[in-house]
Amino acid sequence: MDQVGLALVEAVGPVEALRIAVGEHSLEGHHLAPGGVAALAAGRERWRPRAGSLAPDRDLETLARFGGRLVVPEDAEWPEALGALGGDAPLCLWVRGEEPLPAMDRAAAVVGSRDATGYGLSAAGEIAKGLADRGVTVVSGGAYGIDGQAHRAALASSSPAVPTVAVMAGGVDRYYPSGHEDLLREIARRGLMVSELPPGASPTKHRFLKRNRLIAALTALTVVVEARWRSGALSTARRAMELGRHVAAVPGSVYSANSAGCHRLLREGALCVTDDQEAYELIAPAGQGLAEEHRGVTAAHDGLSLVDLMLLDALPARRGAEVESLARTAGLSEAEVRAGLGRLALMGMCGRTSGGWRRTDQK
Amino acid sequence: MDQVGLALVEAVGPVEALRIAVGEHSLEGHHLAPGGVAALAAGRERWRPRAGSLAPDRDLETLARFGGRLVVPEDAEWPEALGALGGDAPLCLWVRGEEPLPAMDRAAAVVGSRDATGYGLSAAGEIAKGLADRGVTVVSGGAYGIDGQAHRAALASSSPAVPTVAVMAGGVDRYYPSGHEDLLREIARRGLMVSELPPGASPTKHRFLKRNRLIAALTALTVVVEARWRSGALSTARRAMELGRHVAAVPGSVYSANSAGCHRLLREGALCVTDDQEAYELIAPAGQGLAEEHRGVTAAHDGLSLVDLMLLDALPARRGAEVESLARTAGLSEAEVRAGLGRLALMGMCGRTSGGWRRTDQK
Repeated sequence: MDQVGLALVEAVGPVEALRIAVGEHSLEGHHLAPGGVAALAAGRERWRPRAGSLAPDRDLETLARFGGRLVVPEDAEWPEALGALGGDAPLCLWVRGEEPLPAMDRAAAVVGSRDATGYGLSAAGEIAKGLADRGVTVVSGGAYGIDGQAHRAALASSSPAVPTVAVMAGGVDRYYPSGHEDLLREIARRGLMVSELPPGASPTKHRFLKRNRLIAALTALTVVVEARWRSGALSTARRAMELGRHVAAVPGSVYSANSAGCHRLLREGALCVTDDQEAYELIAPAGQGLAEEHRGVTAAHDGLSLVDLMLLDALPARRGAEVESLARTAGLSEAEVRAGLGRLALMGMCGRTSGGWRRTDQK
Repeated sequence: MDQVGLALVEAVGPVEALRIAVGEHSLEGHHLAPGGVAALAAGRERWRPRAGSLAPDRDLETLARFGGRLVVPEDAEWPEALGALGGDAPLCLWVRGEEPLPAMDRAAAVVGSRDATGYGLSAAGEIAKGLADRGVTVVSGGAYGIDGQAHRAALASSSPAVPTVAVMAGGVDRYYPSGHEDLLREIARRGLMVSELPPGASPTKHRFLKRNRLIAALTALTVVVEARWRSGALSTARRAMELGRHVAAVPGSVYSANSAGCHRLLREGALCVTDDQEAYELIAPAGQGLAEEHRGVTAAHDGLSLVDLMLLDALPARRGAEVESLARTAGLSEAEVRAGLGRLALMGMCGRTSGGWRRTDQK
């Protein structure tokens, strides 16, 4: 943000600041430090080339036509979470769509490369859909690749929560990228398009970087699905880390350049998530979402004592063995073997045949 | 380990302990606490089934035939690193091969699943070869899959250091698994086979688990390349974590069951490594191996000031633009634009054409 403009807004409020900035009003009646006067003069010099095109009334009209609204910090709807940005917080949010802005702790960013692979698209879709199904709003940047996939997957959820929010680098009346016009229209219809810039503003590289801080600040968790070694998604993740939010990365092949940025994040402290359940656990309210060991197939011998495990090792699978032989093989006393055989037999792990004791078939 | 046996060895030394254990000598002349006497009686009961087959002289002869040696804690060669295991340290190491045991800080474990994929084999090979090339001894368990690949790749290095050490769950005279007989012979010839068990001991599930602690303790770093959700490699990694050693995991597809264990480790605090360079950095002596950002292709605009970046965004790629128009587009004063154009032109990033200023083609 323009620091001088920001200071001016803080000193005199947004409406008066605009009038002073464009030269309609003077500073008379306002108390500014001597340094402030000089800075303001420089600011006016900088703003002059664009002052003529400022037309906030027209911007509001444009927004209204699109079914949108302007949200300012004084509004009840203003996301408190943006306060974490301090002096870097936006002055306002231009919002398109009818839904309310989601609370930070029910919002997760799913972001990544534009040139995603099928692998990344698949992972992004599963994670975004799974989060939306659990009532978490999926926030992303509306771009091709991972972003678009995350929005689409969230829209496919039938959860009653706001499915998805696209935070734009330009105005919310702009469909950027143009190939996402239909997708962005659908997001505006069932979710929200959000920007700190007024209608008509076009996205620039600088604005994409600035935009990323909003994605980070509006959410409790940022998941990077695929990202190259240098990727805008990394800037979102790093801002989220600075803000103390959860940051996760999806791993991939070490031979995929599209995962190199994710692995870089994992090395920088991001959490490894491989599915929607693991992502949800990071932001689930206390006591919810704590997964059972969901991939764990419990092996039959889990939890056996060391003695029983040694005995199990010693038990032959085919021909039976007598206690004396088992004791020799396992390195246990005959008394220990007898007691262990009893325990294992109770668990159905061994049995007595005509030739002696043997282990029972288990998978 | 057998705690009673261990206490006996500590109290009277290994040779006398053996004589007492098998009943050749009595406890006369040795001072034991009352509890110790009872424990020893129980221990003798437990040891009796196998006492008859104990024949240390024969074991040493067998080992000598294989060109091996017995290393005990009193030897200069004894790895100090095993002290980290405390009471769980081995009593001795049966070593086959002529090379000296490598120092812990020049040894790394590369371990993983037996049923490895082509992806895992490839990653294991590259990491093991790269570590061996840097003079790091690759320690593994001699098994099929990742272990075998790590040994093979290390043997392919032409570094003068000991290329690889196989830590066995049975005796060093046993080729287990049998399909690795040639590989294990080669490891014994150019590296080392190591076991805490005497020749003839056969590997059991219990012994594999015990063996893993040696792999963890003998090395400064454990790299898990591929592992299922439940895998012996995870036990090695966890022991290494407990010992305060570096633990790393190689990421893979979230859809590969063979990487699920690695991702689990990453969630438990293992470091993410994607190649040999990253693995080596973890154990490189201070000042060595600190990689340049090895995948980083520096973008031309890296390091530009915010003003210059905003100006660069505003500069058209084709038809030129005048200062006034650039100031309006970039949101800068005309003075800032003029100064910025000078800086960017110096860096070859913009130029003046007949129609005004435009950015210069960059990759």
